[in-house]
Amino acid sequence: MTLAEFVASAIPPVEGRHAAARALLDTIGVMLAGASESAAASVQQVVAQESSGLQCSVLGTRLRTSATNAALANGTAGHAHDYDDMCFVSLAHPSAPLVAAGLAIAELSGATGRALLEAYVVGFEIEARLGRAMNPRHYQRGWHCTSTLGTIGAAAAASRLLGFDAAVSVHALSIAASEASGLKENFGTMVKPFHAGLAARNGVLAALLAQAGLTASGSAIEGPQGFLAAMDSESSALLPFIADLGGRWEILDSGITVKLYPSCAATHPALDALLDLKYRDGFDAADVDRIDIGVDAITPTVLLHEHPSTGLEGKFSMPFCAAAAVVDGHVGLATFAADRLADPIVAGMRERVAMHVDPTLDAGAPPLTQARVQVTLKDGRVLGAVANGARGYPDRPATSEQLAAKFLSCAGVALPETRAREALAALQCIDGAADVRTVIDLCGSGGAT
Amino acid sequence: MTLAEFVASAIPPVEGRHAAARALLDTIGVMLAGASESAAASVQQVVAQESSGLQCSVLGTRLRTSATNAALANGTAGHAHDYDDMCFVSLAHPSAPLVAAGLAIAELSGATGRALLEAYVVGFEIEARLGRAMNPRHYQRGWHCTSTLGTIGAAAAASRLLGFDAAVSVHALSIAASEASGLKENFGTMVKPFHAGLAARNGVLAALLAQAGLTASGSAIEGPQGFLAAMDSESSALLPFIADLGGRWEILDSGITVKLYPSCAATHPALDALLDLKYRDGFDAADVDRIDIGVDAITPTVLLHEHPSTGLEGKFSMPFCAAAAVVDGHVGLATFAADRLADPIVAGMRERVAMHVDPTLDAGAPPLTQARVQVTLKDGRVLGAVANGARGYPDRPATSEQLAAKFLSCAGVALPETRAREALAALQCIDGAADVRTVIDLCGSGGAT
Repeated sequence: MTLAEFVASAIPPVEGRHAAARALLDTIGVMLAGASESAAASVQQVVAQESSGLQCSVLGTRLRTSATNAALANGTAGHAHDYDDMCFVSLAHPSAPLVAAGLAIAELSGATGRALLEAYVVGFEIEARLGRAMNPRHYQRGWHCTSTLGTIGAAAAASRLLGFDAAVSVHALSIAASEASGLKENFGTMVKPFHAGLAARNGVLAALLAQAGLTASGSAIEGPQGFLAAMDSESSALLPFIADLGGRWEILDSGITVKLYPSCAATHPALDALLDLKYRDGFDAADVDRIDIGVDAITPTVLLHEHPSTGLEGKFSMPFCAAAAVVDGHVGLATFAADRLADPIVAGMRERVAMHVDPTLDAGAPPLTQARVQVTLKDGRVLGAVANGARGYPDRPATSEQLAAKFLSCAGVALPETRAREALAALQCIDGAADVRTVIDLCGSGGAT
Repeated sequence: MTLAEFVASAIPPVEGRHAAARALLDTIGVMLAGASESAAASVQQVVAQESSGLQCSVLGTRLRTSATNAALANGTAGHAHDYDDMCFVSLAHPSAPLVAAGLAIAELSGATGRALLEAYVVGFEIEARLGRAMNPRHYQRGWHCTSTLGTIGAAAAASRLLGFDAAVSVHALSIAASEASGLKENFGTMVKPFHAGLAARNGVLAALLAQAGLTASGSAIEGPQGFLAAMDSESSALLPFIADLGGRWEILDSGITVKLYPSCAATHPALDALLDLKYRDGFDAADVDRIDIGVDAITPTVLLHEHPSTGLEGKFSMPFCAAAAVVDGHVGLATFAADRLADPIVAGMRERVAMHVDPTLDAGAPPLTQARVQVTLKDGRVLGAVANGARGYPDRPATSEQLAAKFLSCAGVALPETRAREALAALQCIDGAADVRTVIDLCGSGGAT
C-alpha cells in the first residue's frame, strides 16, 4: 500500500480514534495556553494584517483568518509552551501540526468529529512510518521532525479530511515534500514553535493546492532527488516500514507521550522522582541541603541553561525546574512566569541543585528517559530514587483526570472557566460531534486578542 | 561583514541597480505570461478563496490579496514558463522569487523604484554568496536552489525594503533558513514553478514575522545544525565567500542570464546555433534530411522528453525544440502551445532530430553550455556549427530591443497591447519611480481572472 492509498482508504480502529481524541483534547488545551505567548502573538499579528474576517478561527483569540493562516497560528500556539505531546518514533511533537491542520480543514468543510479523528490517525501513522525510515539520521543532521515529518503528516490529514482519492493524495504529499523544512539550530528560540505552525500551514496549503489542481511528481518522497534522499534519511526506501500500514497502528503500538510538565522532556523523569520523594517524605525547600540529579550523557546537551533568565530558558534548566518543583510542589505553566524566575526562594534552591552525568544509568534506555535523584536534607537524611521514563509516557499514560486538569489549566489562560469546562466536555465526546465547528466555536473567541 | 549587516548597510552601485532593473522588467514580463498557466491558476484559486480584497496585486489578474499570498502567486507565475532569468553561481532562477517578494513588500509600503532595485541587488548578492559556498554539492543532493537559496534571498530583499537594521535582519534570515525547501525530484511538474512562489512567500513571511517580533537563532545559517549543515553545503562556512560582500558585486561580475527561449536552458546553445545556420543558409524544414545535435553528458539527464505530449515536456525536449525552431524560424511562448505540440510538420521534423553525447566538446566548460549542431540537407549539403553558451548569457547579453520584445510578447498574454507598452515604459525608468505601486497598477489588473 502506498502512502497515498493509505490516506485514501485507511479505516482507523476505534482505539486509534480514542487515542486521537485524547491528543486533540490535550493539544487544544496547549494551543489555548500558547495563544498569548510571544511567538504566537507575532504570527497572529501577521495573520491579522494579512486576512481578517475569513473562515477559520485562531483559538483563544477573536481572530478569524484563512485556513493556511489559521493552521500557522494554531500550530505555533500549540508548540509555544513546549507542553504539547510527543512521539518517540517520529521524534516529533505530532499533535500541534496535525491538530492545527485538521482543525483548519474541518472548520472549512464542517467535518464530523469522527472524520477529524480519523484524519489525525492517518497523519500520525504516516508521520511515524517516515520516522521509522528516516530517523535517527534525519534528526541528527539537524532537521526538526516536528516540522519536516509534520508537514507530510499534516498534508495527509488534510487530504484525508478533504476526501481525496489516492491520485490526488499523491500530489498533496509530494507538494508537501517540497515545502518541508525546519532547522534544529533554531531550537530555544521562537522559531521552534513556529516550526509546528509551518508544518500545519504547509500541509494545509499542499492539500488545498492539490484540490485546486496543482500536480506534482509521484516520486517526490522516495525518488533519487526526493524527500528521503535530500533530507538525510537513514533508509533510502519506505517499503519495509510501510508494509503493514493499515494493519498495525503506531498510534496504539508506539503511542503518544503526554507532557505533564511544560518543560523539556529531559526534565520529566527527574521531576517525577523528585515530586514523589517530596510527597512521600514530606520535606520542603527549607529542609533541603542539596539535590543531586544524575542523567545520561545526552541530557546536558539539551538542558543548557543553568541560570535561566527567561521562562523559555527555564524550560531547559534542570536546576530551575527541580528547584521550582521542591518549592512549589508542582511544575506547571505558572512555574515559567517571570515572577517565579525571579523568586529568591526558588533562586536560592536552584543554587543547591547539581546535575551530572551518571554512568551507572541504564545505557540501553532511550536518551533523556533516565534519572537518579538524591535529596540530602539538612537533618542528615539522604533520600534517593531512580526514574525510568515518566508519567505521561505510553506505558504510564496520563489519566483522564490528569488530562482534564491539564486542559483546564491551559485553556484557562485564554478562556473563562465555564467556557473552558464546556470545551472540555465537548472534546470528551468529539468522536460523536456532527460538526467540529461547534467545538471550535467554544475555543475560538475567548477574547485574548 | 555579516549577511545581516550587509542587508542593513549595503550601498549597491548604480550599475547593479541597472542590472536589477533589467531583471525586473524581464521578470514582470514572464510573470504576466505565466499568470494564466495552470500552476499559477491553482495558486490563484487558493489565494482567492483565502483572502481577497487585500493590499497586494497578483499581476495579470484582478486579484488583490495579502503580501505573502501575492508573493506566492507572482513567484509561481514568474517561473511557470521556465522563461525567467538564471544565475550560474547560485544555480538558481534568481528573479522570480526576488521580484515577487520585492513587489509584495514594495506594494505594502509604497517603496520607491530605487529602493526596490537596491533590495533586489541585496537579495541577489546574498543568494550568490550562498551559492558559491554551498554548490555544487547542495544542488546535486536534490535541492532546488531557486527555492532554497531563493528563500534566503527573498527574505534579505524584503528585510532591506522594510528598512531593518542588522539585528532584525538576522532574525528574518534565520526564520527564512527554517522555511527553505524545494526538491528537484519535483522538476517537470507544476511544483517547480511553485517552488519560486514558495521562496518568495517564505521570504516575505520571514521578514514580516521578524518585524512583528519573532526572534530566531543567530546561528541558524552557519551553526552545526543550521542551514549549511542540513542542506548539504559544499563548504561548512560562509566566510571566504562573503568576505568581499559590498566590495564586489556578483550581479555585475557573474551576471544574470536572460532566457531568450522559453525552454530548458540546456536547449539554448543548440537553438542559437541552429537558428543561425537556418538564417545564414536559408533552408527550411522541407529541405532537411536530418539534424544531429551533440551535447555534454549531463544534458540528456535534463532533456528527458524525446516524444513530449505537453508543453511542459516540450520545454525539456531537444528534438521538439529543434524541430520547432526549423519549422517556425523561432522559439517562443507559442511554440509550446497545444497546436504546435500536435502539428504534424513539427512532429515529422522532430523524428529527424537526434541528440547524442559528443565527447569532443570542451570538457572544461560549465554543464549544459556546449552544443555541436550538424544539419544534413536533402541536397547532400552538410551544415555545421559549434555553440559555446548562448545569447542572453552575461558575456553575450540580451539587447534592450530583445528584452523589450520579450516583455511585450509575455505581457501581451495578460494585458492589452497599449497597457503592455505603458508598463514597459514605466519599467524602463523604474529607478526614478517615486512609488512602485504606479507600476504595479499597470500590471495588476489586466483582467485574466
